[in-house]
Amino acid sequence: MTKIQHINVVKIGGNVIDNANALARFIDDFAQLPAPKILIHGGGKLATRLSEKLEIPTQMIEGRRVTDRQTLDVVTMVYAGLINKQVVAGLQAVGCNAIGLSGADANVVPATRRNPEPIDFGFVGDIDAAKISSDFIATLLEAGVAPVFCAITHDGNGSLLNSNADSVASAVAVAAARIAPTDMHFCFEKLGVLQDVDDPDSLIEEIRPDYYRELREAGVVNKGMIPKIDNAFRAVEAGVQSVTIKHSDNLLSNKGTIIKL
Amino acid sequence: MTKIQHINVVKIGGNVIDNANALARFIDDFAQLPAPKILIHGGGKLATRLSEKLEIPTQMIEGRRVTDRQTLDVVTMVYAGLINKQVVAGLQAVGCNAIGLSGADANVVPATRRNPEPIDFGFVGDIDAAKISSDFIATLLEAGVAPVFCAITHDGNGSLLNSNADSVASAVAVAAARIAPTDMHFCFEKLGVLQDVDDPDSLIEEIRPDYYRELREAGVVNKGMIPKIDNAFRAVEAGVQSVTIKHSDNLLSNKGTIIKL
Repeated sequence: MTKIQHINVVKIGGNVIDNANALARFIDDFAQLPAPKILIHGGGKLATRLSEKLEIPTQMIEGRRVTDRQTLDVVTMVYAGLINKQVVAGLQAVGCNAIGLSGADANVVPATRRNPEPIDFGFVGDIDAAKISSDFIATLLEAGVAPVFCAITHDGNGSLLNSNADSVASAVAVAAARIAPTDMHFCFEKLGVLQDVDDPDSLIEEIRPDYYRELREAGVVNKGMIPKIDNAFRAVEAGVQSVTIKHSDNLLSNKGTIIKL
Repeated sequence: MTKIQHINVVKIGGNVIDNANALARFIDDFAQLPAPKILIHGGGKLATRLSEKLEIPTQMIEGRRVTDRQTLDVVTMVYAGLINKQVVAGLQAVGCNAIGLSGADANVVPATRRNPEPIDFGFVGDIDAAKISSDFIATLLEAGVAPVFCAITHDGNGSLLNSNADSVASAVAVAAARIAPTDMHFCFEKLGVLQDVDDPDSLIEEIRPDYYRELREAGVVNKGMIPKIDNAFRAVEAGVQSVTIKHSDNLLSNKGTIIKL
């Protein structure tokens, strides 16, 4: 039986990773967040820059990048190597004991390579929260270590896969909710869901399913935000207590848009 | 109290990493080695090739490479990212539950940046076996997971460091010996210590301190082997039961040179 009473799961987006000052502030704040806690980080632009320097052609289909073998190697180096280890070393420096993980490590986030039909996106992995190892996550949390996930996963047959960091984060939060009540914080470069995208004072503090339907019908929620909110609702429907969409500077405050059932 | 009775610690060198067939055979063999077990892997030539492609100048002092910031990023990407995660995914595929670690992860291998006087080798970390977290290694082994270490460490102040993989391996073995009796296997592309470097039938099966003195006085041991044997003796003097220097194809056999007190 676990002694864990509550878990905080935090996602930071690539824009925070790309901004050294924002990242340093975020690392300080994450260190202060009550444990047990879990971090999932996005990728940022470094992988694209490295691909360019290495003259690896970028293949796009329907506006989305194809992960061919060379690109898989680049994202593995950048996400699972450089960014993951720099974040972990940064956390250690401010007194937060953390451990960096890809999905292959301890088979904690197995994935399934996406069906190449109708579109072959290459080495891209889809995640099933039910298959995430809650037991191993609990072992780490009980040992006083904060898992830090990148979005590199694996297929169990020896191939690494590139997954969507938001999807990894939601699935890890759902897996954490099997251990103890879990609240999730989706941190990025905006304040949350705004009534008026140009007015930071128009922050919507809480969205529940009925209100979300109203907002969508009224056309208030802008396009880029819909996948994030949908993702958040899938997480709360699967057992996460709440998901708060917030600015990376506001991790320790309540400012943001909380999504609940 | 730990239930662990015995630990196998295995080091593979960069030459095995660079040879896809040798690496695949080795991964199969490591999966069959009795658990609990620990793997430490070297780097290989990929980091050098990537540095060349990125036009990062290689600075050498007294025949040894300097790890400047750009080189540190490259080795972090290649060792802690690509190689470490490919080895872990390969082990998962053959039924060996493994977890990749840098020294920063769970602060398991803290290091000290080498004094820049008299020669500044840059971001290079020296390791003290006494500071390695045996407790965390035991937690992983008890959870049925094999730790897979690369030679990237950290200084505890937010900087990653590049360490010598043989030194990481020896220090991890010494730390493992605090948990349970530990035998170490140093695997590379040669059969072990040979009387005559050109005669594979001249393998020396066992070296103890007195015999090592004799061999050195007679000039039998060739130069390249001396640091490996010295490293092995330091490990057995610090509590490791035995160190066997052997070919990576012979992990599961007794063929090799065993070093004991």
